[in-house]
Amino acid sequence: MSKQYTIADYLFDRIAEAGATEIFGVPGDFNLTFLDNIIASDKLRWVGNTNELNAGYAADGYARERGFAAMVTTFGVGELSAINATAGSFAEYAPVLHVVGAPTMAQQHSQRRIHHSLGDGVFNHFIKMVEPVTVARAQITSENAASEIDRVIRMVLKKHRPGYLMLSQDVARQPIYPPTTKLIDSEENITSQAALTDFRQALLDFLPNKTTTLMADLMVHRLGLQNQLKALIADTNIPYTTLSWGKTLLDEQSTRWAGTYAGVASRPVVKDAVESCECLIKIGVQYTDTTTAGFSQDIDEKVVVDLHYERTSIGGQNFAPIALKDALQTLHEVMTSGIEITPKPLCAQIQPHEQNGADDEAVRQDDLWHIIADHLNHNNLVFADQGTAYFGISDVRLPEGVTCYGQPMWGSIGYTLPASLGAAIASPNKRSVLLIGDGSALLTIQEIAIMLQEHTNPVIILINNEGYTVERAIHGENQPYNDIPLCNWQLIAQAFGGNENNSLSLKVETAGQLKSALKEAAAIIDKLVLLEVMTDKHDIPPLLADISAALKP
Amino acid sequence: MSKQYTIADYLFDRIAEAGATEIFGVPGDFNLTFLDNIIASDKLRWVGNTNELNAGYAADGYARERGFAAMVTTFGVGELSAINATAGSFAEYAPVLHVVGAPTMAQQHSQRRIHHSLGDGVFNHFIKMVEPVTVARAQITSENAASEIDRVIRMVLKKHRPGYLMLSQDVARQPIYPPTTKLIDSEENITSQAALTDFRQALLDFLPNKTTTLMADLMVHRLGLQNQLKALIADTNIPYTTLSWGKTLLDEQSTRWAGTYAGVASRPVVKDAVESCECLIKIGVQYTDTTTAGFSQDIDEKVVVDLHYERTSIGGQNFAPIALKDALQTLHEVMTSGIEITPKPLCAQIQPHEQNGADDEAVRQDDLWHIIADHLNHNNLVFADQGTAYFGISDVRLPEGVTCYGQPMWGSIGYTLPASLGAAIASPNKRSVLLIGDGSALLTIQEIAIMLQEHTNPVIILINNEGYTVERAIHGENQPYNDIPLCNWQLIAQAFGGNENNSLSLKVETAGQLKSALKEAAAIIDKLVLLEVMTDKHDIPPLLADISAALKP
Repeated sequence: MSKQYTIADYLFDRIAEAGATEIFGVPGDFNLTFLDNIIASDKLRWVGNTNELNAGYAADGYARERGFAAMVTTFGVGELSAINATAGSFAEYAPVLHVVGAPTMAQQHSQRRIHHSLGDGVFNHFIKMVEPVTVARAQITSENAASEIDRVIRMVLKKHRPGYLMLSQDVARQPIYPPTTKLIDSEENITSQAALTDFRQALLDFLPNKTTTLMADLMVHRLGLQNQLKALIADTNIPYTTLSWGKTLLDEQSTRWAGTYAGVASRPVVKDAVESCECLIKIGVQYTDTTTAGFSQDIDEKVVVDLHYERTSIGGQNFAPIALKDALQTLHEVMTSGIEITPKPLCAQIQPHEQNGADDEAVRQDDLWHIIADHLNHNNLVFADQGTAYFGISDVRLPEGVTCYGQPMWGSIGYTLPASLGAAIASPNKRSVLLIGDGSALLTIQEIAIMLQEHTNPVIILINNEGYTVERAIHGENQPYNDIPLCNWQLIAQAFGGNENNSLSLKVETAGQLKSALKEAAAIIDKLVLLEVMTDKHDIPPLLADISAALKP
Repeated sequence: MSKQYTIADYLFDRIAEAGATEIFGVPGDFNLTFLDNIIASDKLRWVGNTNELNAGYAADGYARERGFAAMVTTFGVGELSAINATAGSFAEYAPVLHVVGAPTMAQQHSQRRIHHSLGDGVFNHFIKMVEPVTVARAQITSENAASEIDRVIRMVLKKHRPGYLMLSQDVARQPIYPPTTKLIDSEENITSQAALTDFRQALLDFLPNKTTTLMADLMVHRLGLQNQLKALIADTNIPYTTLSWGKTLLDEQSTRWAGTYAGVASRPVVKDAVESCECLIKIGVQYTDTTTAGFSQDIDEKVVVDLHYERTSIGGQNFAPIALKDALQTLHEVMTSGIEITPKPLCAQIQPHEQNGADDEAVRQDDLWHIIADHLNHNNLVFADQGTAYFGISDVRLPEGVTCYGQPMWGSIGYTLPASLGAAIASPNKRSVLLIGDGSALLTIQEIAIMLQEHTNPVIILINNEGYTVERAIHGENQPYNDIPLCNWQLIAQAFGGNENNSLSLKVETAGQLKSALKEAAAIIDKLVLLEVMTDKHDIPPLLADISAALKP
């Protein structure tokens, strides 16, 4: 090699091997020299963000789409700004590696009042603070670099949750040799064959002659088992649903799609299909309060076949350890083995939405999300922020191929704006569609500058309803704390570097205007389109009305 | 009382008693009902921020100016977004109380997957994460409310550092009676009279017939001892200096002001005054790497009289415990007792700045900060962000009465924008002047919306030098990671709610234009003025050149 291979090179080679081709972050004086290694790398590209929280959100969106992401921040100030994003990645299973530039080993050993520290001479406060929201952490030294880099990245990939590496510039420039092992070796498998055998037999005993519905959720996506699930659906004829966390896992255009299940907030068709079947097959389901209207699911666990991360159960009897992919394969084999599988009959079909308001009237939330859905296509990555957008889009039928992302577990408003950027960079052939309210957008709005700089082409549908409408629905309908400053959203893109070549801003008030604007946005594929939709500040989608009733304090 | 007095009322009454008349934060569904108590309070006003990090920064600025601040966020997502601000308040001694709305006790006891939690049924992760950056924490219950609220707020006031309270809405609405004790009782005093007596005698022995210089720093401000220090200066005739962290503690218009001390980066006058005197009186001094050009101070501790938080020393001999205010009073008494105090003669006087560039030429950093200083007045609160702004303004002579705030220890870029808002709200009769680069401003820019909504009248001097110039000075002069997206700063105020009645945006390139614009800004006192100053992306102030050399990795 003409240039010395260093610990920084080793780290970034492993990051590339884990699946990243971009790396997010914000520079700081404790990481500058090893950012040079990224700039020099032919495997990675640096994408600077406007701040560290936005970098963390962007990395999360990238990780959801790509299966792995990495970000770099600086000690203390940078990493702590990003920690809420990391916690969200932990709660929502997004595998993000966070590399933090730390003071040199000499500075740390000096125990002096170094900037970006608390001034107490202690330099491990922050690696401790991040412990509850990461699955592995290490301070890289010249002694442990290869093993600790490998260990932490492997844990991130295995657990689909964040990891943390602290790296000093003096350590980063130490010589090392390139890795000789593969990052991912022949995958270890936790599945017990004995457990699997017993599970198969129990399925054969349990499944026949019961009316059956399938319910899938988030973990299928996070474990990358979407195609395996789709194959099961294709080879059977049972009806199916997802929770909102698992939305778009399965084709929603099918007559077998029962709608989105949400406990007491469910529509009658899906409520009946889930709660009145004789066998409910749950795949990767995790109930949260926001996806079940406050744990209001009325499901008899005795009828449930539950396939989860590393455990399965039938009517409450556990079979473990079994990896989800093995359980899914066994289930597929059993269901197609010729035994009698009885689809739960749907009590009705989900009908096409009939618009409630007229085209020349102010658009209503009970129409808005259906109209948006009608203008999506298989190429869209939809990000719905945890407000009227998330609850609005959860309940409507989306075109096949759309991927819908939200954050119902962590629920950090503003998350989706940078996350949609990250996903767009991860999948440059897709087009991101961001659904976000004005209150949420304000938290992270500067990331539009990076969308423009990166020449991404999102359609940003900004619901302008003068504040935190999701909170008005819960409490304080007319309290001033739910108001936000009124911004001129039509100038936002331009203020952050937009011009007529790279962006278009539109504003609509009626349903008819919305349809025209959505058509226009879909046709303009080389620009960022910001489409501001004016809605009444008290108007909420039907699902939110039911869920907020369950969440009232 | 017509309405039941509750734990929330108790908390907010104590917050008001501690000195706050405003409370910052962001609403969330776990704090909404007790935000109602703030809206109903006649002692407190709610100031909503655009996001939680900005709320934390605003509270920090308010606390510096007012001596105490409080903020409210929501569980998990909200509090973690603010944790970098809290860490900064800890490192820089800003007394901020952080109240976090938590899930109800019933939700916590259920150990279920509640939104804004990590989904593991554990609800004390975040109160643990905040431990290293707070001096006291408590989860308020109906059993401990009075004692724990009092304990935590008292610790915040005593240690001048952040505290944390976790409050559920079900607890907040429990009845309680108003406090009967005062929050601040007759203050306990750690000073040992015996230590003080020995310190006095040691001063009498040490001080006479030595050339003497005084050096003051941050802690004098944080302990509220500015007037006591000024009285000492008024009654003696020794020369004095501060570190940049203590800038504007003392009158810089006096011929006794030696300039700002910064180790090897000091100008000759102040370097000689500090390093060549026979007695250096240090008051509340904490050396950090950024204020001393990498701990390059060349000071013989044998000549030092050091008055600190709760300890004094003379030539290395310690006298403790002695509170700083008592030590200062004793020092004042001894120095004015008739003993021979010999001012260290200054080797020169700091001369008025002679402009290096012509008025019709592009403004240069070695003129810029002097020109700005010339247009400040005693009514200004100056916030200088940790970039060319901080190092630029540190080195110039400011008018008497100006208070200059920076964050050299924590050094979180973007901090000053919301902090200047907080300080402006704390001291509505002052006018804040924000000095910030484009790279830093981008991190927190949306808080301009709150400045406008609150009808504050800052002068925002935005140095547009196309990125992170302070980092270019350290490493990566032309590396892309030090670039930022080019924004249209002239549209920013308008995009965030500005109009011709509440704001004015200006842009200058030459020194002459800058002077005119500063005059105009000073004359328009009822608007937010955003003054964009174009400077070369590699141009840095002289002090930064010296300090960055010391900080190179």
